[in-house]
Amino acid sequence: MSSLNEVESTYSRLIARKNVRGVVLATRPEGLIIRSSLSDELSKIYGKVISELLNVAQNAVKSIDDQDLLKFLRVRTAKHEIMISPGNFYAFRV
Amino acid sequence: MSSLNEVESTYSRLIARKNVRGVVLATRPEGLIIRSSLSDELSKIYGKVISELLNVAQNAVKSIDDQDLLKFLRVRTAKHEIMISPGNFYAFRV
Repeated sequence: MSSLNEVESTYSRLIARKNVRGVVLATRPEGLIIRSSLSDELSKIYGKVISELLNVAQNAVKSIDDQDLLKFLRVRTAKHEIMISPGNFYAFRV
Repeated sequence: MSSLNEVESTYSRLIARKNVRGVVLATRPEGLIIRSSLSDELSKIYGKVISELLNVAQNAVKSIDDQDLLKFLRVRTAKHEIMISPGNFYAFRV
């Protein structure tokens, strides 16, 4: 499956899920937006801050145990939850 | 309840929970260890990397919406899950 198909199928699967208010797919580690249901401005902010958070989380996991691997990150805030998958591109729901 | 009691009661409550393999309580933002069930060495690593991760997560949340607030962080790895509460001291289970 070409990566564009993969992006589209991941995006449609996530955006269709109940309670999902937004999906942003971006490249790693740059955080460049591939596909997003949010505004351009908000997508860019997400791309930047989430790629930085993923990098710090990955380093944290490696510092604790260099045989371990970051699989998923959940950021619960007062207003919603951000779910972050550190795959070759990452998707998160706001 | 003095903060020492609060620390002890939080620590005992967390360490008693099923599937909890370790608890580290540390100060914010320095990450200095207050109480830990892990080795000194591992506790120090946790204190350092988790306080950094919390700071980056808090900034990420504020960049996205400055009216929002980080409530909880869950780091799922291949080997376990780290649960992080950004209270005045933070506890996490490994």
